[in-house]
Amino acid sequence: MAANSHFQGWVAHDPSAADGNMNWGSYTPKTFEESDVEMEISHCGVCGSDIHSLRSGWGPSDYPLVVGHEIIGRVTRVGKDVKDLKVGDRVGVGAQSECCESCRPCKMLQESNCNRMTMTYNSKHSNGDKSYGGYAKSWRGPASFAIPIPDGLLSEFAAPLMCGGVTVYSPLVSNGAGPGKRIGVVGVGGLGHFALLFAKALKCHEIVAISRSSSKKEDAIKLGADKFIATGEDPEWMTKNANSLDLIISTISGSFPLDQYLQLLDVNGTFVQLGAPDDPLPSFSPLGLIFKNLKIAGSLIGTRQHIRDMLELAKETNLQAWVQVRPMEEANQVLVDFEKGLPRYRYVLKN
Amino acid sequence: MAANSHFQGWVAHDPSAADGNMNWGSYTPKTFEESDVEMEISHCGVCGSDIHSLRSGWGPSDYPLVVGHEIIGRVTRVGKDVKDLKVGDRVGVGAQSECCESCRPCKMLQESNCNRMTMTYNSKHSNGDKSYGGYAKSWRGPASFAIPIPDGLLSEFAAPLMCGGVTVYSPLVSNGAGPGKRIGVVGVGGLGHFALLFAKALKCHEIVAISRSSSKKEDAIKLGADKFIATGEDPEWMTKNANSLDLIISTISGSFPLDQYLQLLDVNGTFVQLGAPDDPLPSFSPLGLIFKNLKIAGSLIGTRQHIRDMLELAKETNLQAWVQVRPMEEANQVLVDFEKGLPRYRYVLKN
Repeated sequence: MAANSHFQGWVAHDPSAADGNMNWGSYTPKTFEESDVEMEISHCGVCGSDIHSLRSGWGPSDYPLVVGHEIIGRVTRVGKDVKDLKVGDRVGVGAQSECCESCRPCKMLQESNCNRMTMTYNSKHSNGDKSYGGYAKSWRGPASFAIPIPDGLLSEFAAPLMCGGVTVYSPLVSNGAGPGKRIGVVGVGGLGHFALLFAKALKCHEIVAISRSSSKKEDAIKLGADKFIATGEDPEWMTKNANSLDLIISTISGSFPLDQYLQLLDVNGTFVQLGAPDDPLPSFSPLGLIFKNLKIAGSLIGTRQHIRDMLELAKETNLQAWVQVRPMEEANQVLVDFEKGLPRYRYVLKN
Repeated sequence: MAANSHFQGWVAHDPSAADGNMNWGSYTPKTFEESDVEMEISHCGVCGSDIHSLRSGWGPSDYPLVVGHEIIGRVTRVGKDVKDLKVGDRVGVGAQSECCESCRPCKMLQESNCNRMTMTYNSKHSNGDKSYGGYAKSWRGPASFAIPIPDGLLSEFAAPLMCGGVTVYSPLVSNGAGPGKRIGVVGVGGLGHFALLFAKALKCHEIVAISRSSSKKEDAIKLGADKFIATGEDPEWMTKNANSLDLIISTISGSFPLDQYLQLLDVNGTFVQLGAPDDPLPSFSPLGLIFKNLKIAGSLIGTRQHIRDMLELAKETNLQAWVQVRPMEEANQVLVDFEKGLPRYRYVLKN
């Protein structure tokens, strides 16, 4: 096998790709190093970040671009320095595919905040090569970020856990979600649906879904919510539910009434913002923070240990993401459907 | 001794009291209950909250008012139901003098956020009587909030710990201040001076004082700071010190550049706001929170356990607050001097 064989995948050449104009074609993956693995991709989840990056939504993307960072497949090639993976192993790769191992966050085992991190696409590996994602036939990259998938967990469920799943699992466990705790989840979309599933899997005491309208109420209950708050339909929603939650996971990225959400929190409560809004957070009163000892936090994806723990929990609790499996060939149409808000709640591309 | 004997103290009748117009006179303390103690006050610290309350700064105060919530004295009377205090014991009372013991925060031993808390002045006890503070000869109230002062800790040092000290000690220990941790303290005033002293007593790895000008640099170094940042004198202060702190304790209450302070924090860092500004916190970007997993927190005084632990630490480390002891008779002049920004760093009234 040539060291730099061309890979086949959905290549984006400009921002119009986000509208369903990716082109199937070949591209050159990173140079194979002895610490790398290659895999044949079986599944790749579709994440909102994919479309935002295709569109150059966080600044100009480095085209040509192959997105996708919820990747599952079988190992097909293993570098000489790789100790713990072998050909045939089923692995997953999430939003991060390399870290420096030497900065302070890395040494704290918080490599998901590495100062020189490599994202799985639209980024550079430490050797200078571009990184490419999983809307493709194959993936190549550092073995240290290819996480073994436990037997018994279906690949179509495992795929969206690699980014969407751990993005909510990490702040849940880092902020004490579990028995006795009352959890609010703002937004019932891709991330929100995982937050409800994991809050349930973690045996939280009460799980409250919070959304503008009640259109997803039935789904939220099936996903594990004990209660549903429709902020756009009940003017009393805040006063009725004041001081009733210990932790709020906010998965929305538009503007929102932070002050009012803070009033839902009880003493020592934490509000975690996951969605990265284009606008700054609104001005808010610190008095609520002070009088109730509240915290406002942010959280980015999760560490490899969080991913391993999450996959084990998903297997043990038979956690089933609500996925719609679509052929890899239909990726352009899937992007269009995603932007229409159609996923219930995660698309997974299958080769 | 009559159950409702009149007490003598500095009585405020209207907001002008804040300008040094309190009147020495008598007032009726709460009705003595069998769970109460009385003490002869020896010392009372002067806290910014005293002046803010005298002036009706947090809404109309309930005049007549006797302020002061950093109270030290000897027990002179003990109710029949009081088990662990006796006449002659030296005790201290802080900003809170009663809690309901039945709400969720109280049951979590977080009684400093009690849903029905009694502040030491300008508040009501559970029996309906008004609470009165320590600019006075005597204090009467629940024994459960009269904390024994360890032998060997001078009363003039102990007094300002009861509110100012625990207000910074509590968020320091609740957010992991200790060996290996890098602590920033914004503002070198009453609270800031305690934050530097306690960060040192807790053996923090690096202590950084942050102020607009360098006028208090020398003091800050003596108080324990390893480094001083003058934000008004070095336009590069933020970039030079980015990602260098684990915890920032903000003791200022005016407007401030939250976004820039957040950039000083390293991954997993926490910014704690203590001062209650009259204005809302500024709008800020959540991207910093998300990419570095940061937290913004508030904190209100501290629990009784925090007070006991703090007093022990102060005794063990021979922690000496920088106090200026002034006669109780001069309380009006002390208010005037306080408002001029003269304390270095805490006035203590002495009977």
